[in-house]
Amino acid sequence: MKHFTPVKRVLISVSDKTGLPELGKYLQKAGCEIISTGGTHRVLKEAGIPVTDIQSVTGNPEAFGGRMKTISFQIESALLFDREKDRDEAEALGILPIDMVVCNLYPFGSVKKEGADLPRLIENIDIGGPTMIRAAAKNYRWVTTVVDPADYRMVMENMTAHGGHTDLETRFTLMRKAFNHTADYDSLIATTMDEQAGEPTLRFAFDQPQVLRYGENSHQKGTLYRLRNAPDSLCDMEVLHGKAISYNNMFDLYGALEAVRDLKNNGCAIIKHANPCGLSEGKNQRKVFEKAWAGDPVSAFGSVIAFNTPVTLETAQFLELDAKDKSQRKFVEIVSAPGFEPSALDYLKQHKNLRIVVFDPARLQPAHDMKFIYNALLYQDADRELLDKVEYVSHKKDPVDEDLMRFGLTAVRQLKSNAICVARTCKDGDIQLLGMGCGQPNRVNATQLTLARCRENLKNEYTGDPDGLEEYIRQEMGKAVLFSDAFFPFPDNVELSHADGIRTIVQPGGSIRDKAVIEKADDLEMTLIFTGMRHFKH
Amino acid sequence: MKHFTPVKRVLISVSDKTGLPELGKYLQKAGCEIISTGGTHRVLKEAGIPVTDIQSVTGNPEAFGGRMKTISFQIESALLFDREKDRDEAEALGILPIDMVVCNLYPFGSVKKEGADLPRLIENIDIGGPTMIRAAAKNYRWVTTVVDPADYRMVMENMTAHGGHTDLETRFTLMRKAFNHTADYDSLIATTMDEQAGEPTLRFAFDQPQVLRYGENSHQKGTLYRLRNAPDSLCDMEVLHGKAISYNNMFDLYGALEAVRDLKNNGCAIIKHANPCGLSEGKNQRKVFEKAWAGDPVSAFGSVIAFNTPVTLETAQFLELDAKDKSQRKFVEIVSAPGFEPSALDYLKQHKNLRIVVFDPARLQPAHDMKFIYNALLYQDADRELLDKVEYVSHKKDPVDEDLMRFGLTAVRQLKSNAICVARTCKDGDIQLLGMGCGQPNRVNATQLTLARCRENLKNEYTGDPDGLEEYIRQEMGKAVLFSDAFFPFPDNVELSHADGIRTIVQPGGSIRDKAVIEKADDLEMTLIFTGMRHFKH
Repeated sequence: MKHFTPVKRVLISVSDKTGLPELGKYLQKAGCEIISTGGTHRVLKEAGIPVTDIQSVTGNPEAFGGRMKTISFQIESALLFDREKDRDEAEALGILPIDMVVCNLYPFGSVKKEGADLPRLIENIDIGGPTMIRAAAKNYRWVTTVVDPADYRMVMENMTAHGGHTDLETRFTLMRKAFNHTADYDSLIATTMDEQAGEPTLRFAFDQPQVLRYGENSHQKGTLYRLRNAPDSLCDMEVLHGKAISYNNMFDLYGALEAVRDLKNNGCAIIKHANPCGLSEGKNQRKVFEKAWAGDPVSAFGSVIAFNTPVTLETAQFLELDAKDKSQRKFVEIVSAPGFEPSALDYLKQHKNLRIVVFDPARLQPAHDMKFIYNALLYQDADRELLDKVEYVSHKKDPVDEDLMRFGLTAVRQLKSNAICVARTCKDGDIQLLGMGCGQPNRVNATQLTLARCRENLKNEYTGDPDGLEEYIRQEMGKAVLFSDAFFPFPDNVELSHADGIRTIVQPGGSIRDKAVIEKADDLEMTLIFTGMRHFKH
Repeated sequence: MKHFTPVKRVLISVSDKTGLPELGKYLQKAGCEIISTGGTHRVLKEAGIPVTDIQSVTGNPEAFGGRMKTISFQIESALLFDREKDRDEAEALGILPIDMVVCNLYPFGSVKKEGADLPRLIENIDIGGPTMIRAAAKNYRWVTTVVDPADYRMVMENMTAHGGHTDLETRFTLMRKAFNHTADYDSLIATTMDEQAGEPTLRFAFDQPQVLRYGENSHQKGTLYRLRNAPDSLCDMEVLHGKAISYNNMFDLYGALEAVRDLKNNGCAIIKHANPCGLSEGKNQRKVFEKAWAGDPVSAFGSVIAFNTPVTLETAQFLELDAKDKSQRKFVEIVSAPGFEPSALDYLKQHKNLRIVVFDPARLQPAHDMKFIYNALLYQDADRELLDKVEYVSHKKDPVDEDLMRFGLTAVRQLKSNAICVARTCKDGDIQLLGMGCGQPNRVNATQLTLARCRENLKNEYTGDPDGLEEYIRQEMGKAVLFSDAFFPFPDNVELSHADGIRTIVQPGGSIRDKAVIEKADDLEMTLIFTGMRHFKH
């Protein structure tokens, strides 16, 4: 696009004065006339830049405590008239073109953040600014609209590169930015006023589209967007290596980061189909990785893995990417961490498809959680708590270590409901997810899946005499703790757990049959703990 | 709020002329001066209503092909000045107040829908309208802003009720509506221009909040919003009876409607934790309900149920809500249908907590599907297809009936991944979900869960000699079909299925080990069908 327009007359009216003197000086040197208002005028004058007072253009006074400054037939005509079709008409009306508007709006957002009351909020609704911005943007074929001080440098460079003009492509981009700016501004005003009226509304904008290869399945188109102007976003992760990230990768990565975020020491989460099938925390990252992997060593293949501490070479080597026997190599989709030792990075890069992602899970602090359900939105606080109150409700009161309690609840909270998991403190002090069952219509199924997984894993780790296996399983299960995301509706899960050696159960409580459940635990001499907090997740 | 303002001068400039003459006549009778522009002026004049031409107020001509009509120091001052503080200043400047603005904007949205090109889109960006609306809305303490013809009646009634004034509460409500209107308008312009630039952005607004008792769990606040201005929404369902609908109810209801939407004849879906644990279609609704219930008769308690045809009394009676033995009564959370026979409704209302919902699942036609993941959005086409191409890849080619194929794929598509299900055509021709397994990191687990559920259900329905049970199971499993939402990565699932009597498997295919999987099916003389379409859902 080679449609240039000379920048000769510039209207500047900004609330944010950042970079204003530099821009003013540049425009002065470029031979532009600068028209300006109030505070902007003062700053430019102090920088020694000659300014035309807006009143000499509008022919009107600044009126009504500043509510009327720029809005006028003269200013908006100068911005809006078609430089081809309307040229004679403008001349007859004595309208000189304004070629560029530099404007940002009354800081409605910041006064809102300061907790302004309604009258102050109202006073901070800019009327003249959006009018100028929108008029200039509409006439982008000739007029340059600048709403963001961060664009001053680009605009100056563009003018320099084109001999004092801006090019049409740049003006189109700036026009899009302008309408996004006014859309954001009125969106914030609208939601704020609705909130004031006690009828809250929500408005979201998403930009920076990344077209993905496809959606959840190849017949669905998929795109990843960033929440506009969010201070942080999962989109800001750094991808150091590997194939393009897929739709399902992103969702699993989110699950992995959520699962590992609240772990202590070195934490590792292994995700398959959005559920953590491996989870561990402890002192030695490599050992923690091994323990997480052992949670479901079959499903861990092709998983998404997140660490909460920088990955060492020793840890990375557990994947055996350089094993001569290719079947020994543990292929996973993503390894994410707050960082990577250079040698670990080199090691992981051996696998050309493996996606290596830098993202610190501590950054993941969502306040809300949303679900779209056919032109409706389910909007809720994120589930960030773990328990209300630890209450030993059985006669037996074998204590559960605080760290194990936090770990187990963190795990079960992250599993799709109905969910059950078993966690244990290992001999070396590390904490490990020994088994889980999730996504079940029936809680009994979730318990059965969990217990079967635990038995399988204990069998895998057992190295002694085959005759001793069952004893080993009962012994280890007896030291572990079973966690449920919601109350047991019947005593059946207590019996099932007991049959496989579980001795301690943590669940929210709150069923109308709690009494029967507690009695069953007492019958079986088990420790039953209520937390008072359910963790459904769907 | 008793802050009244007299409506004496009204500025009308509307693109949508609906209801304009009636409003004009009312204002005329109320003794108002009406200021107007172009087309609006003409319509009012034709209706015999005296109109002041806007040019006599602005002192400016209409200029630049209509781009400049209202924007002027005079009009915006008349809207914006503070009726208390700025009274003297306005008088000195000769500004008479304008007390009401009736304005809607150039139809950017409709010309976009017509497929307008960029120049036409740009010409339909209204500049003067939003300026007037925003100025009037900012000064809502005195000025009434009307942006929607649907509000004319209310405004006239409000004026009549208050002796020719509007009240402050109404003006505040109209102000909120005004800023929502301009926010919508600029949102649409912004996303349209971003789309034109090949960098699509998304903007969503949600209103009509319904505060729910809580979110997924009681420590999370939850609210249901409606997608603003959507022609249809799940929020529009009619709740005929029962307790307030909860957050989890809504999500399950969405799942139930999705599951039943694509069923033929009479369809019924039973949902627990967002997954269909019962699903059936056929000629007789009562029998279909029984068959769906039999899919998981334990989990069906406390479920959310959707029908795709109006519910009859006979169907409703299956819940046995009037059973003398209370344990016989089948309590469910929601029964949803496109309608209810009056006698069925009366019957269901016996249970005071049961939520009875009217919603036709055929209405549920989402084009997209979204997931929020920490300030990012995963956005994709909804998964509305079933298969690419039916391909019998085994030697054995026992045909699968088209209806059973559609039903089974519909079911497995709706289950959380990894998902497996078994469906069968019953002796009476109805189709039934015999068992399912879902939400598993490992596909083998999903298969095991499914087969165990099928065996259990067949055992439940078997009435013959106990010795004949195993034979019956093998016979029924042999007639049923197993569906997988994604390819089998290994032949193990084929073996597992075969061991429980399955003879026909439908899966997408596409694994690097397809050959081994097909060989296994051939070894076991099974029919293996590839569909070419995966249905992951998370």
